[in-house]
Amino acid sequence: MAGKMKAAVFVEPGRIVLDEKPIPDIGPTDALLRITTTTICGTDVHILKGEYPVERGLIIGHEPVGIIEKLGSAVRGYREGQRVIAGAITPSGQSYASLAGFHSQSCDTGHGWKPMGGWQFGNTIDGCQAEFVRVPDAMANLAPIPDGLSDEQVLMCPDIMSTGFVAAERGEVQIGDVVAVFAQGPIGLCATAGAKLRGASTVIAVETVPERIEMSKRMGADVVVDFKKADPVDEILRLTDGRGVDVAIEALGTQRTFEACLRVLRPGGVLSSLGVYSTDLTLPLGAFAAGLGDHKIVTSLCPGGKERMRRLMNVVASGDIDFTPLVTHRFKLDEIEQAYELFANQRDGVLKVAITP
Amino acid sequence: MAGKMKAAVFVEPGRIVLDEKPIPDIGPTDALLRITTTTICGTDVHILKGEYPVERGLIIGHEPVGIIEKLGSAVRGYREGQRVIAGAITPSGQSYASLAGFHSQSCDTGHGWKPMGGWQFGNTIDGCQAEFVRVPDAMANLAPIPDGLSDEQVLMCPDIMSTGFVAAERGEVQIGDVVAVFAQGPIGLCATAGAKLRGASTVIAVETVPERIEMSKRMGADVVVDFKKADPVDEILRLTDGRGVDVAIEALGTQRTFEACLRVLRPGGVLSSLGVYSTDLTLPLGAFAAGLGDHKIVTSLCPGGKERMRRLMNVVASGDIDFTPLVTHRFKLDEIEQAYELFANQRDGVLKVAITP
Amino acid sequence: MAGKMKAAVFVEPGRIVLDEKPIPDIGPTDALLRITTTTICGTDVHILKGEYPVERGLIIGHEPVGIIEKLGSAVRGYREGQRVIAGAITPSGQSYASLAGFHSQSCDTGHGWKPMGGWQFGNTIDGCQAEFVRVPDAMANLAPIPDGLSDEQVLMCPDIMSTGFVAAERGEVQIGDVVAVFAQGPIGLCATAGAKLRGASTVIAVETVPERIEMSKRMGADVVVDFKKADPVDEILRLTDGRGVDVAIEALGTQRTFEACLRVLRPGGVLSSLGVYSTDLTLPLGAFAAGLGDHKIVTSLCPGGKERMRRLMNVVASGDIDFTPLVTHRFKLDEIEQAYELFANQRDGVLKVAITP
Amino acid sequence: MAGKMKAAVFVEPGRIVLDEKPIPDIGPTDALLRITTTTICGTDVHILKGEYPVERGLIIGHEPVGIIEKLGSAVRGYREGQRVIAGAITPSGQSYASLAGFHSQSCDTGHGWKPMGGWQFGNTIDGCQAEFVRVPDAMANLAPIPDGLSDEQVLMCPDIMSTGFVAAERGEVQIGDVVAVFAQGPIGLCATAGAKLRGASTVIAVETVPERIEMSKRMGADVVVDFKKADPVDEILRLTDGRGVDVAIEALGTQRTFEACLRVLRPGGVLSSLGVYSTDLTLPLGAFAAGLGDHKIVTSLCPGGKERMRRLMNVVASGDIDFTPLVTHRFKLDEIEQAYELFANQRDGVLKVAITP
Repeated sequence: MAGKMKAAVFVEPGRIVLDEKPIPDIGPTDALLRITTTTICGTDVHILKGEYPVERGLIIGHEPVGIIEKLGSAVRGYREGQRVIAGAITPSGQSYASLAGFHSQSCDTGHGWKPMGGWQFGNTIDGCQAEFVRVPDAMANLAPIPDGLSDEQVLMCPDIMSTGFVAAERGEVQIGDVVAVFAQGPIGLCATAGAKLRGASTVIAVETVPERIEMSKRMGADVVVDFKKADPVDEILRLTDGRGVDVAIEALGTQRTFEACLRVLRPGGVLSSLGVYSTDLTLPLGAFAAGLGDHKIVTSLCPGGKERMRRLMNVVASGDIDFTPLVTHRFKLDEIEQAYELFANQRDGVLKVAITP
Repeated sequence: MAGKMKAAVFVEPGRIVLDEKPIPDIGPTDALLRITTTTICGTDVHILKGEYPVERGLIIGHEPVGIIEKLGSAVRGYREGQRVIAGAITPSGQSYASLAGFHSQSCDTGHGWKPMGGWQFGNTIDGCQAEFVRVPDAMANLAPIPDGLSDEQVLMCPDIMSTGFVAAERGEVQIGDVVAVFAQGPIGLCATAGAKLRGASTVIAVETVPERIEMSKRMGADVVVDFKKADPVDEILRLTDGRGVDVAIEALGTQRTFEACLRVLRPGGVLSSLGVYSTDLTLPLGAFAAGLGDHKIVTSLCPGGKERMRRLMNVVASGDIDFTPLVTHRFKLDEIEQAYELFANQRDGVLKVAITP
Repeated sequence: MAGKMKAAVFVEPGRIVLDEKPIPDIGPTDALLRITTTTICGTDVHILKGEYPVERGLIIGHEPVGIIEKLGSAVRGYREGQRVIAGAITPSGQSYASLAGFHSQSCDTGHGWKPMGGWQFGNTIDGCQAEFVRVPDAMANLAPIPDGLSDEQVLMCPDIMSTGFVAAERGEVQIGDVVAVFAQGPIGLCATAGAKLRGASTVIAVETVPERIEMSKRMGADVVVDFKKADPVDEILRLTDGRGVDVAIEALGTQRTFEACLRVLRPGGVLSSLGVYSTDLTLPLGAFAAGLGDHKIVTSLCPGGKERMRRLMNVVASGDIDFTPLVTHRFKLDEIEQAYELFANQRDGVLKVAITP
Repeated sequence: MAGKMKAAVFVEPGRIVLDEKPIPDIGPTDALLRITTTTICGTDVHILKGEYPVERGLIIGHEPVGIIEKLGSAVRGYREGQRVIAGAITPSGQSYASLAGFHSQSCDTGHGWKPMGGWQFGNTIDGCQAEFVRVPDAMANLAPIPDGLSDEQVLMCPDIMSTGFVAAERGEVQIGDVVAVFAQGPIGLCATAGAKLRGASTVIAVETVPERIEMSKRMGADVVVDFKKADPVDEILRLTDGRGVDVAIEALGTQRTFEACLRVLRPGGVLSSLGVYSTDLTLPLGAFAAGLGDHKIVTSLCPGGKERMRRLMNVVASGDIDFTPLVTHRFKLDEIEQAYELFANQRDGVLKVAITP
């Protein structure tokens, strides 16, 4: 396996380029995956812009769909040639944090906890915008694709579907809840779908881009508030007769939306935050009820591991939700620089791109 | 019952005075309680100073221990002469919020939710620093005192014990947790006791007043960090080998302690906040892991209702915890102005005062 | 209001008859409801057959849809003429059990707990198969019907929708779960809908009556196993590749189905039981993993109270689920004896009947 | 490492003998542990008696305290010579079941679930009543012993402390609960301690052996009911004024105690079962409220993995609980047959034995 492969490599802020890299070696507990489809995430754009620092020369990408090319000597339960995905988060399952159920905040040395430590692909190890990727702790992470599902059908499972759904799960959405979702980019759209899937009777989405408003309704939003036409806080309070929402989901990563979530939340409600923030956040005294409102604020990083992937693919297989409409553009790996260009600038109504080597 | 009684009345910012007021009338679902012991809360001091606004002429106080003087015509299950307490929060049990389990955020009109709406005594209706108090929704709120318990043994149940414990409960303290508690005033001391009672193996308290450090150890703190001798964040991280704590409890109400809680929290941990804040709060980007740390922030207002009171009195009756040492000073109701003077200025090592009409 | 009204009265085992009874008087915390639509429940048939004992002369029925005729003197927040429902369970919200969140197991005297104590209509007080019904603790129980919803659209909320959904809720159904539901009578059908609403990716229903199989699919079942064509335990294990289901819901009330639930459950799974049993139950040693399988068994009685009803009507109003197809037959109150005859003998594909005074 | 070692081997029902066996080989993810202290469990006695079947020739024992002799090539984060324990349950952390949080019901092949699959030592692989033991998935299972703790102080962590505590944890014991614990053998005693540690205000233990009654009080029981002097169901109902207990813990494994748990449970309460049953169980119709009592029944198998062990050792290190009094007898490994003889026949007031190679 001493060959070469093509891969999208972070060179310096502003430049992710297609380059040639050695096909990865694997250790006894790893697997080598031949990528058949992958995608670009908003986080990759943060990396591109230098807003999230990674090492130069790193292969980017954390949403792999592929075929097992090779298995480490200690890996049991899989066979080469099997179609699988792996999550964006690849826990070992064996750290203190993982064993406590916090797979995303985990590392395998020291005391075992590390913020975002479970996120390795395209962050601390080479990622999957490439022809091949090494999957660490393969037995914890490789999830076979059910027969009959296409690559594009499962392409959202590794990251945005897992992330969007966890907002509803950790937000404790209940049957009959009213839920607000701020921003309907790819993750916000999945959060909308997730909130409906958990039984929310009313999902109020906030967005202004027409294509996203349209897609939001398709994903289950009962009402979409266009924040350029009305103040979303006023509008949501009006829609709920002043009561506010049971759960407010932040899916953008700004002070304005974070704060709006708190302002539309009923006392005792949950602010479920998915955004990646780039500044300190402020909790306004009044909206926070001076600390006496029985509020909860929860943040969540994309859950990973093969069990999570198995469940998400079950949801896809059931036909209850179809995320393939989110794939608005398709590129060859050779064209990945163009794909970044389109995606980073959100041109042409792009939601998600599919990249095929 | 057309008589007069003595009561502590809010006159204007800076002045709570002993005055004469009519003994309250009661409606069909109320009870009239003859107060035998009550106390002053930090919140009352906020009222005194005009930092928390209430109507002029209101009787202050929300921690009643007493004897049933008279029952409304529709109240069943009690008898006059019975020794009871009522919680600081007096839910009807019948609002939408109450039926959803949020008794503290409840009201009985409109959509049924109101921030802090369950807190009535000394806030929206006359309170209990008086010879008599009207208890609304008596059937939901009167909790008989078990035989053998003195007034002072149950005096902390209506507010600070309920509040301190809920920090540990909503903070989801587990057996074997490491918990930090910032500030060891009366509520922080109860939070320390509550964290131990939920099975925390290590409680690290933060305080500097010698009497409070001493009391903190008595309430179960395993370590007390004197924040004047060492930076508490550094010290707690050192004590936990860089891992941080599972749950951090804020019991003061300042940006500094709120932020310190976040800084000592492991990813995936819970910041359980009890403080009454008086300014907007800032979440520092790094300590908040840019929103990706799987953190939870929960705020809690004192749980009330007779079932809560029953449980807390059971804890007292079991002998597992004794809060009577918190009563450092005793006054007659006639001397309540002196009591306020001492308590508001935290003189003479005061923790809690007992007031007896 | 000294008039007379028609009502379905339990005379003796085997006889529920239409009779004339006085229009109920109400107390200060009650309301008088003019019934516009009601229905018959399986439990009413148990009463009819003498299998569940109630006092002779009692008015039967616990699923009221109606109009407020008169409000007690202490009732605020409603107006006469308002369209409302009340749940089958009518908690006061003020007992120890209610305040602990167990509204169905509640009573207002003594220690406050009573198995099924929250179920009063047609059990311990007069019910609603009548022209009028007295609703106790009106403020906790009257839930206004949202504009635009018909009586039949909300007719399932007071009992079977609340009951069916709680099986999924207390069964802790998660996104991506595989759920089995044994029996697709009215409550089983609602459980199927509830499991889907909580995000189950696969619901496997077990039934044999063709109309119910058909309705089961309409309510969301992904697969229906006809237990006359295949052993349901074998079939479910086959469908799940030997893994078993995450949650098994019992909706019949027999040893055979209860046991089958346990046999199809993966270790760590939840058996969520709705059935009303009439014999002791056996837990087979093997299926119970000798007590070492990390199993949970939960039983649930229909949740009531106006907050629950409000949420269920929100679900109806959202259009996510439509239970009106369950109403297969319609009768006037005058014809209620015929309705009982049809329903008790499950003739003519009956699922639920609508009764209108 | 081609040497020989002494080990307790299951020969046939009725015979566990000390024998010579090869020192185990280890693979890349394993560790070899030199046992310094171990003990005998009630389950081992079931194996001895042939009531629980294991393969002939298997080394028995699942409670290892020892020193790392050798680490597999892929194991990081430990060093040879380190003092560690491992839990009775040794999950890989990488199966579907493990990743879903069900470490005890896990296996690494097929669909990943297996009842009791996480229990390997002395069940499906060689155990630790020997001079050496191979620990599978070392990184998930080796838990370093905090400085200053003796072997006997941590000897109960791998099994009975973890098992006893989980009864309180999965039983959802809350501050102020009344808890009954049926039987005060080693596991019941740990359950008593665990219930107190979770904040139960009253633990009522049921036992008759004088030494165990005595030890029960030492472990925190507030009342011990001697079932030979009074019917425990009647007595517990009397002690709770007819209300019943919030949580009932079964720690024996018989129909009689299982049923008694249900009979003393308030509606809405939790029966938390630890017993290993040897017959089908019966749920009496009345005590089970015909399925309408909002009851929960949960069973639990000993949680394992290094994070669990770390937490339990923290509890020991905190000094909050001391289980060393449970070690009533000490033997050399050479004397293990005598140890079995004593322990299996519960002679001489034995609770737990310490075995040292």
